[in-house]
Amino acid sequence: MFRPQIKVCDCTIRDGGLMNNSKFTLETVRKIYEACSKAGVDIIELGYRNSKDHFSPDKYGAWRFCDEDMLAKATEGIPKTAKIAVMQDAHKADAGDIVQKSGSVVDIVRVATYVKDVDKAIALANNATSKGYEATINIMAISHVLERDLDEALQQIEAETSITACYIVDSFGSLYSEDIDYLVHKFQRYLQTKEIGMHCHNQMQLGFANTIEAIIKNVNYLDGTLYGLGRAAGNCPLELLMGFLKNPKFDIIPILEVIEKTILPLRKDMEWGYNIPYMIAGMLNVHPLDALKYVDQQRADSASVDGYVKFYERMRAEDIST
Amino acid sequence: MFRPQIKVCDCTIRDGGLMNNSKFTLETVRKIYEACSKAGVDIIELGYRNSKDHFSPDKYGAWRFCDEDMLAKATEGIPKTAKIAVMQDAHKADAGDIVQKSGSVVDIVRVATYVKDVDKAIALANNATSKGYEATINIMAISHVLERDLDEALQQIEAETSITACYIVDSFGSLYSEDIDYLVHKFQRYLQTKEIGMHCHNQMQLGFANTIEAIIKNVNYLDGTLYGLGRAAGNCPLELLMGFLKNPKFDIIPILEVIEKTILPLRKDMEWGYNIPYMIAGMLNVHPLDALKYVDQQRADSASVDGYVKFYERMRAEDIST
Repeated sequence: MFRPQIKVCDCTIRDGGLMNNSKFTLETVRKIYEACSKAGVDIIELGYRNSKDHFSPDKYGAWRFCDEDMLAKATEGIPKTAKIAVMQDAHKADAGDIVQKSGSVVDIVRVATYVKDVDKAIALANNATSKGYEATINIMAISHVLERDLDEALQQIEAETSITACYIVDSFGSLYSEDIDYLVHKFQRYLQTKEIGMHCHNQMQLGFANTIEAIIKNVNYLDGTLYGLGRAAGNCPLELLMGFLKNPKFDIIPILEVIEKTILPLRKDMEWGYNIPYMIAGMLNVHPLDALKYVDQQRADSASVDGYVKFYERMRAEDIST
Repeated sequence: MFRPQIKVCDCTIRDGGLMNNSKFTLETVRKIYEACSKAGVDIIELGYRNSKDHFSPDKYGAWRFCDEDMLAKATEGIPKTAKIAVMQDAHKADAGDIVQKSGSVVDIVRVATYVKDVDKAIALANNATSKGYEATINIMAISHVLERDLDEALQQIEAETSITACYIVDSFGSLYSEDIDYLVHKFQRYLQTKEIGMHCHNQMQLGFANTIEAIIKNVNYLDGTLYGLGRAAGNCPLELLMGFLKNPKFDIIPILEVIEKTILPLRKDMEWGYNIPYMIAGMLNVHPLDALKYVDQQRADSASVDGYVKFYERMRAEDIST
């Protein structure tokens, strides 16, 4: 038995873009888009539509901006079976960068926000819905959010937007199943006219398990990425999610193929997936930034980094918040 | 708050030994034993005590047999804080290889069995308890067991043994949290005088999550391995388990250190952890044997193996049972 309301979103390009400044080749993006389309994925997120005032095009690749001409190049000639999404960061994007829906291949604008920026997020979400798109609001760094701030944000989102779904984003990969239960219940209580979404990170190898936990609790919008490609330990692996969901429209074959031919070769340049520095960040509920730096430095010159114990002790002492 | 009844067992040498025919150096075993002891692990399993009639000492290393003189060498000079365990395979071990407890450093004999061999397992467990040891029975390949066979085996184990704990062993890494719930409930119903144990494999990245699920359901005997080292995708990572459990006696520092200095270097010769062939085996609920062969062959000569899609289709067609 499957739940037809479930919508799976592939975020490989967008979340993976946090590991390479969104510098995927056009060919890579097309391969991923094609494979996910063939596999029956419901939503494919092709990157960020963030502001060039905040991100220099000299430093960041095309998928940080997702200009319409690039999206056309990424998708043309491939039968459109999925909705196309882009993400706007509430504090780094402009409403003006969203054209009228009639002039775009995009279907869904997903607005990522810290709780403190919820008013900006609501404005961007409403900008998108007013221009004819679906919108979602994705509340990042949820494991650092103060209870009262979250309650107020959810009340506002329910009252002031017509978004499709509001996502719980475990940016630091530090939630356990009991935390998922607690947050889902809270979101459901406040957001009675919206769907709930789940976006997990895998710092403690719980990305897939926490997504399952959310499914059991009636969460219908689910994020995954190919082979988990995403920031730090990455995300809930899409291939595992497809294996778990029983919807017969899903076909894992194109997913296995694109992982082998397109995703795994990217490991030459990026190290995502479980390792001890990312695990330490998740366990301590801190941003993976320092762990990412550690891993980069270790790849460049392994003799130059401290051992894991020193890294752990440093992280414990710092307790970095975003 | 923590549950003092919880006993964590490190199986790195024993389950990892399935990846290298138990050929760890004495130094490696001593480092692991020392680190786990310092970290406050309750039980340390140093290998199998299987029969030399079934395993040739020419082909298998010392930790497939765990002769008393080797165990003495592995442990001497290191303060003993944990119980020491060895495993006997019900269908590949001799009762005569277990000496009287007074002549051994071993505290616990863990008997691994398929359901069909439960009578052999009970005989070996009773042999161990009669000689002064604690014993456990670990029911392997649980995802292939027929319901009625399992019910009968559990009735027998309850009535005919005085083991400390009976483990659910997800050898194929194919169980989801709902399966864990179902099995734990069944084990608890039949085994009212024994503790329940959980031993997970990580083919679908659920080793840690399923162990947590078991903890929530009052399972008290928990297996883990350092960095997940074990057959195929490996086991529940001990470092994650220690982070989750709140017992202040645990110290993760020696665990981080031994992972860095002793475990990670083993990756040159063994490929454990999540990958697509192991994932396919887990998802299809089949023995990882073919996936292990595939991965070995790929490491030796990547051009010689079929792609993932062909491997998946072959596995689907075969449905190998143990």
